[in-house]
Amino acid sequence: MTTADDASALFTETLNDVSEIAVLERIFPRLPRSSAELLGPGDDAAVLSAPDGRFVVTTDMMIQGPDFRLAWSTPQDLGWKAAATNLSDIAAMGARPTALVVAIAAPPSTPVAVLEGIADGLRECCEALAPGCGVVGGDLSASDALTLSVTAFGDLEGREPVRRSGARVGDVVALAGRLGDAGVGLALLFRHGVDDDGMPNADRAAVLKGQYPDEVAAQLRPVPPLDCGPAAAIAGATAMLDVSDGLALDAGRIARASGVGIDFASAALGVRVDVALSGGEDHGLLATFPPGVRLPEGFRALGVVTADVGSVLVDGQPRTQDGWDPYRGWDGAVG
Amino acid sequence: MTTADDASALFTETLNDVSEIAVLERIFPRLPRSSAELLGPGDDAAVLSAPDGRFVVTTDMMIQGPDFRLAWSTPQDLGWKAAATNLSDIAAMGARPTALVVAIAAPPSTPVAVLEGIADGLRECCEALAPGCGVVGGDLSASDALTLSVTAFGDLEGREPVRRSGARVGDVVALAGRLGDAGVGLALLFRHGVDDDGMPNADRAAVLKGQYPDEVAAQLRPVPPLDCGPAAAIAGATAMLDVSDGLALDAGRIARASGVGIDFASAALGVRVDVALSGGEDHGLLATFPPGVRLPEGFRALGVVTADVGSVLVDGQPRTQDGWDPYRGWDGAVG
Repeated sequence: MTTADDASALFTETLNDVSEIAVLERIFPRLPRSSAELLGPGDDAAVLSAPDGRFVVTTDMMIQGPDFRLAWSTPQDLGWKAAATNLSDIAAMGARPTALVVAIAAPPSTPVAVLEGIADGLRECCEALAPGCGVVGGDLSASDALTLSVTAFGDLEGREPVRRSGARVGDVVALAGRLGDAGVGLALLFRHGVDDDGMPNADRAAVLKGQYPDEVAAQLRPVPPLDCGPAAAIAGATAMLDVSDGLALDAGRIARASGVGIDFASAALGVRVDVALSGGEDHGLLATFPPGVRLPEGFRALGVVTADVGSVLVDGQPRTQDGWDPYRGWDGAVG
Repeated sequence: MTTADDASALFTETLNDVSEIAVLERIFPRLPRSSAELLGPGDDAAVLSAPDGRFVVTTDMMIQGPDFRLAWSTPQDLGWKAAATNLSDIAAMGARPTALVVAIAAPPSTPVAVLEGIADGLRECCEALAPGCGVVGGDLSASDALTLSVTAFGDLEGREPVRRSGARVGDVVALAGRLGDAGVGLALLFRHGVDDDGMPNADRAAVLKGQYPDEVAAQLRPVPPLDCGPAAAIAGATAMLDVSDGLALDAGRIARASGVGIDFASAALGVRVDVALSGGEDHGLLATFPPGVRLPEGFRALGVVTADVGSVLVDGQPRTQDGWDPYRGWDGAVG
């Protein structure tokens, strides 16, 4: 029989109450399995298959405070976003995601249920966006701030990686995924998801999630178009990246790496041109394709590649390339 | 001409004073290069070679407070130890380390020189212990606590990975590397490397480094015997792991995974048997070899594999398998 006390203990049981081994035993069954896994958790390291003799790797850290607030994100949201943002970097190389390793540092007072929720979010994201991709290893540590550090792997399936440096004058600039919604969602959370003292507030955020479900979800639980990465590579994309810091800033990265300019057509950017250009964390894929190529499903044309080296333009007019900087963008608050 | 003010600015310039891009430009030249790198930093992900169609991967996080104190470790020490501990996990599979990705979160007030020092330490460790291994990517974030999250890769060179589960009754138990020194070093630092209020103190630690150079260095700047990992695999090791949490606890892991017991000969453990069994962070390699195998250079016999399933024994007498637990082992202090 489960008593109310048992239920309460389950809910309030913290990392400090149980051993690392017990936490791992509760997390493992919730994690997604990787079909590339030759040897999984339980040894000093995992072994993964790399069928074409190469593998793609990227890493990204998410920290309570600068990167998320627990009043706004559920543990499942955190696991989902940590997976999605890393997998998007894999897709941006034209690769198919195969596996993740996940290091989590948490205060000893953290309920075990929080780590279970993070594991659930990792699984939900992989199952929904990258079936066959799973978690093959990790590390648990103690810290004052909840910290998720994910490293993701991908398989190029025999193709060359799509770099930032291959765009050529005359190429079509195209985007797969959303544009500006995640930035709007974050601005809404900072404006209306806080209490009267400006502190992140779960009740206010819940109201906001009802009013602006798409924008808030784009921020807290992004859905990057992962399949569009390999599709773009197959279609002959000359350059590609994940749009994480805002369209203008990330387009500038392709422009500088390729020694070209990027000229967006304002009509293609929607009614909120500034939002489309500066909003971060959409995790769409920005790619360039040779003229005349039929764009893969999911991509829409936004502009053309020009000879204005390093420039980002809209209807031929230069734009600033401002965006997110991790050291300057955080005010030190946590919540 | 460099003025005193310029020199002072160089020393006190913080992450908050410069952009992420400028920090990266100062760090990159200091990082070790990987000979497995097909595509390095500058795109959304790196591409690494995996010549035998597989790769080994492990990840480990180090956080100011539970894992290190800035009063005791230099930035170079931190970079060195972050690399060494991860590379030791790769070697423990019988693999040769090929590359690292490194995510660093730091308070915006951190001097840029601290990140440069960490990069120097990463390079010094790879050059000294694993030539050809290098950093192929990373991530910079803001955080209240300095945090290093390293993921390391290795090449099995066509061999099968050496797991924890292959030890057989009658095998010889052998160790490469130091035993207990790192634990003694940590105990000395906590006892004598603190001020009168118990806070970590750099001046007191400096005195200690002069008095006990081997033990303190074993803790702050461990030198795992990385070459012994592939050598053990080639010699036919049946099981192996990196001794990070203490010999008794880690031997228990082999014992349980393999369904055997491990019986150490006290005479082989040195004069400080308890220290040898319980001291953590030595990052030696504990392996089992079939009887009659000539032990590879660097290994010394410590005992035998017995039929006492899951047990760790010394001269036939059971020992507790206590060791480090990240949530219970940290008192919350930082320093």
